[in-house]
Amino acid sequence: MPKPLIALDWGTTRARAFLIGEDGSVMDRRIADQGIQSVPAGGFPAAFEGIAGDFRRKRPDAAIVLAGMVGSRNGWVEAPYVACPALPEALAAAGIAVTLEDGTGATVLPGLSWDDGAFDVMRGEETLIVGLGLDDGIACLPGTHSKWAEVRAGRITRFASFMTGEIYGLLRQHSILARLAEEPSGDDASTGAARGSAAAARPAGLLNAAFAARTEVLAGRMKGGAVGPYLSALLVGQEIAGAQALFGRPVTVDLVADGALAASYRAAFEAAGLPFRITTPEDAFIAGVKRLAARLLA
Amino acid sequence: MPKPLIALDWGTTRARAFLIGEDGSVMDRRIADQGIQSVPAGGFPAAFEGIAGDFRRKRPDAAIVLAGMVGSRNGWVEAPYVACPALPEALAAAGIAVTLEDGTGATVLPGLSWDDGAFDVMRGEETLIVGLGLDDGIACLPGTHSKWAEVRAGRITRFASFMTGEIYGLLRQHSILARLAEEPSGDDASTGAARGSAAAARPAGLLNAAFAARTEVLAGRMKGGAVGPYLSALLVGQEIAGAQALFGRPVTVDLVADGALAASYRAAFEAAGLPFRITTPEDAFIAGVKRLAARLLA
Repeated sequence: MPKPLIALDWGTTRARAFLIGEDGSVMDRRIADQGIQSVPAGGFPAAFEGIAGDFRRKRPDAAIVLAGMVGSRNGWVEAPYVACPALPEALAAAGIAVTLEDGTGATVLPGLSWDDGAFDVMRGEETLIVGLGLDDGIACLPGTHSKWAEVRAGRITRFASFMTGEIYGLLRQHSILARLAEEPSGDDASTGAARGSAAAARPAGLLNAAFAARTEVLAGRMKGGAVGPYLSALLVGQEIAGAQALFGRPVTVDLVADGALAASYRAAFEAAGLPFRITTPEDAFIAGVKRLAARLLA
Repeated sequence: MPKPLIALDWGTTRARAFLIGEDGSVMDRRIADQGIQSVPAGGFPAAFEGIAGDFRRKRPDAAIVLAGMVGSRNGWVEAPYVACPALPEALAAAGIAVTLEDGTGATVLPGLSWDDGAFDVMRGEETLIVGLGLDDGIACLPGTHSKWAEVRAGRITRFASFMTGEIYGLLRQHSILARLAEEPSGDDASTGAARGSAAAARPAGLLNAAFAARTEVLAGRMKGGAVGPYLSALLVGQEIAGAQALFGRPVTVDLVADGALAASYRAAFEAAGLPFRITTPEDAFIAGVKRLAARLLA
């Protein structure tokens, strides 16, 4: 790190901004609600000023790196996807220069694509994966559209997306199960999660196992409070099984998560007997953006 | 058939009523919007009069048999589930007597349950399965909550439900894919269905394959009109794979469907190389209710 760094993880609905000192420590951080969908065309320099202008004034010598949906077609500038397999150097080299209101330069990082017949993409997660510093391994980044990625010899070789979080939300809020689901009380959460985890292994698959939540509740064999945890564990279990079908059984999974998601996936990995270590998304982003910035500035 | 029969397939949102002559032919039929959810407590005799009162007056000597959700906890009377394996005789014997406004008796048929660790139920489909007249076979009844059932030596031995139709609706109307989906034009439907069918066999499963619709459209490799047919074929393919995991590969599947559902499943069976024959839900119901009524009246 030859000089300080202002780094934004700039997504669709939110931006996370960090001021990172020469020594690599985070000197300031903030979360802004100004995701790229709230920024009008041409409004990105002003939006950056609103989110991180004071970081700029505090450290005018800082390099500026922007990751995530800010590099999409609806972002500041389109930074085309880099195709897997890809080294961190390739991601840094594909960064696109943009100019702030005062003429200062900044770099918008690209996303990653993978094509094994079905096309898949990520924007933002690639920076967190780089931050794990893996030579070889499997990373799991849970969320609305979870990502699993394989790293070999320092390259992100391939990855896959799973609609786990989104389908959980659809089932929990809009399906026939929504009416039966209640807030967990007592042991509901652990009972539901244990049953959902077991249901993920049932042979007839997700479409069958999801329906069982309904019949079990109507038969008085499962409480309404167990429905949400059941569905969550069922879907996470199916995601993990799908990822293992693609990537094989990992020696250790690098799980990038915090809060409730970390707890859900931790329980699912334990149920599957899969060793794992956890990194928070913030730690992974900071480490990744520093690594990419060092290559940009080299 | 010793005498005429008035038969209702009385579900949650609709009732289908049939007047069947001594010779077994359908003399009159109608569909009413008065599903059981629109009937107040105690209102079933009046609701029956509204739906099929004129059938009664036309043939006062007719036996009356009611199938479907009318036998649920929120129906006319609760007819407890008969547990699989079950012969048609057991379904007929578990019918519950109710009384019309003028004191005439009618019979409410029960549903079926199956418990292999996860509890599963059906109400109404059991009558259609009986109508297939199978000694041994596998029946598929597609819908919001599709049912697959196994028949051995004339007994319905076990069955499974799949949330195929409901999850299709959630993805098509409420997910991130909803915005990308358009009405199919040109070859969109067949292209989408072929790709969805292939995607159903991808190793990472439904949560991954559903997301591919998004990235393929954004990458310009699939048209918006192909999204709905892609999702439908993907889900139906997963349902068929799940049913085969449970029941093995059937010699022939008895598909009970008509209209668009019949077309979707026909294409999916052809793609899977599975022999099948099609019976319409009306034909299966008429045959089933006649068979059960004959046992009731025997």
